[in-house]
Amino acid sequence: MCVRRCVITVGDLGEFGAINRITGRLPQGAAVMLGPGDDAAVIGAPDGRVAVSTDLLIEGRHFRRDWSSGYDVGRKAAAQNLADVAAMGATPTCIVVGLGIPADLPVTWLDALTEGFRDECAVVGASVAGGDITRCDLVVLGVTALGDLGGRPPVTRAGAAPGQVVAVAGRLGYAAAGWALLEAGAPVDSSVLQEAVAAHRRPCPPYAEGPRAAELGATAMLDVSDGLLQDLGHVAKASGVRIELDPQAFPIGEPVAVAAKELGVDPLEWVLAGGEDHALAAVFPKDVRLPASWQVVGRVIEGDGVLVYGREIGHSGWDHFR
Amino acid sequence: MCVRRCVITVGDLGEFGAINRITGRLPQGAAVMLGPGDDAAVIGAPDGRVAVSTDLLIEGRHFRRDWSSGYDVGRKAAAQNLADVAAMGATPTCIVVGLGIPADLPVTWLDALTEGFRDECAVVGASVAGGDITRCDLVVLGVTALGDLGGRPPVTRAGAAPGQVVAVAGRLGYAAAGWALLEAGAPVDSSVLQEAVAAHRRPCPPYAEGPRAAELGATAMLDVSDGLLQDLGHVAKASGVRIELDPQAFPIGEPVAVAAKELGVDPLEWVLAGGEDHALAAVFPKDVRLPASWQVVGRVIEGDGVLVYGREIGHSGWDHFR
Repeated sequence: MCVRRCVITVGDLGEFGAINRITGRLPQGAAVMLGPGDDAAVIGAPDGRVAVSTDLLIEGRHFRRDWSSGYDVGRKAAAQNLADVAAMGATPTCIVVGLGIPADLPVTWLDALTEGFRDECAVVGASVAGGDITRCDLVVLGVTALGDLGGRPPVTRAGAAPGQVVAVAGRLGYAAAGWALLEAGAPVDSSVLQEAVAAHRRPCPPYAEGPRAAELGATAMLDVSDGLLQDLGHVAKASGVRIELDPQAFPIGEPVAVAAKELGVDPLEWVLAGGEDHALAAVFPKDVRLPASWQVVGRVIEGDGVLVYGREIGHSGWDHFR
Repeated sequence: MCVRRCVITVGDLGEFGAINRITGRLPQGAAVMLGPGDDAAVIGAPDGRVAVSTDLLIEGRHFRRDWSSGYDVGRKAAAQNLADVAAMGATPTCIVVGLGIPADLPVTWLDALTEGFRDECAVVGASVAGGDITRCDLVVLGVTALGDLGGRPPVTRAGAAPGQVVAVAGRLGYAAAGWALLEAGAPVDSSVLQEAVAAHRRPCPPYAEGPRAAELGATAMLDVSDGLLQDLGHVAKASGVRIELDPQAFPIGEPVAVAAKELGVDPLEWVLAGGEDHALAAVFPKDVRLPASWQVVGRVIEGDGVLVYGREIGHSGWDHFR
């Protein structure tokens, strides 16, 4: 009988109960030779090299429990790391997750988080191969993704050269529009606005376009996490080139356009400076024949920085300490 | 001129300034084919498999800034993950670090942390190949270590069989003694007590003994992070065996003995239940000839659980939620 408190919490389960509950929900992908439960997992790396990327997500900074469900947080946390691996031209093989959670966290939230991780990994045939759990007053997620390069050289940020073209795959500005709607407390009553909010809660990176771009001869690539201008600035700097973007070339998604009208904002601001959609941006040789999933949005010339409308746009992305 | 505030903080540097400062202090090991600065690092995995382990360390829970320097925290955080990889019989190749830090963190602390990570990795020929930095009110470290199995099968927790022997390499009880001294506010005025406190701040895992044990035919192995009894309980459970320890077989280190006398504690309690020294515990075939670095402390018989003095000792280790 439940009189005083009906919510089962992580503290009720204890550390090993929580671990068992999590691992019981995690089927393992083909690359996982030894999954959760030992000192380390063992993952296939047939290429003889492994791509590895890690991110830390902090409650209140990267997500809010009142804005995003546990399931959404799991999908987003997995997505941003899987996208980093894809942006090297690699195919993700697994993630491992360090999980800091409060003892009073409802077990249902933990279950949903686990299922979010599981489902986002499944999109690319990967899985959660291991992790660590500890108590923390905030929900903190340390997510590391591994990937296999399939015999291809990694596509870094440093290979762009004058004369090449810049293209993007995936959505731009959706997550920023959704975040702005939530922060403004705007009514989100239409399905088109709901799509923007959903994009903030759960990005849809075009994972398969990463290895595909590598096969198409991409000379530089990254995932757009801090905003296209800032992220392409990294490519310009690492490659020693200038990138000139054509603002007319960007398709403005309907959710971005409608949210911008609602909030009186220039939608291009979200497209160019909004992060967290985890689109891929890549540079290709000029004569490349790109599939429809890639949209040419600019070109590489001599010089430095990133130009839009012929002028350099400031550092508009996200700095975690300013 | 510095009038109001002379401490340079992470907030003064900004995110990219902090990243540059960190990566400038990180030479890269032989396995690193692409280091920090891109979406992902690329690490050699000549074995065609990669061992991967992750841990989350939270300020106030796993370390205190008033008890441990940034350098000590870096060494400890690296050590506990490198030890996990070694406990599979693998040779660590790199770590990646997700770093959550407050804007008012002094840059000197960040520098020391970085140097601690660097130096602990250097002990095994590894390096910090990548990471992520974000703002957080607490210092939070998400550390992931990778390792190469060198063609050997991973040594899991599940291979122990009746008739085999249990052995340990490395120190036991030192870190627990040091922690107890600090928590009691006891005077630490002798070099022998200082050694215990130093062991709490900075473990010295016997990394090379991991691959060595694998080569000697270890059938099960783990690193002692939550206390020997609890950790061997995992081996007993995973292998479906009983482990019987001989309490007389454990050498009690002088710092453990002296600290125990100082605080009126049975030193064997720290040896058997204290975690964080990251010793290695392994099971070997009965006829193995072990080098002096491994001490036989028990045997595997039929049954379940872990016995000391012929009786089962309760769950004496550390549960993060209880």
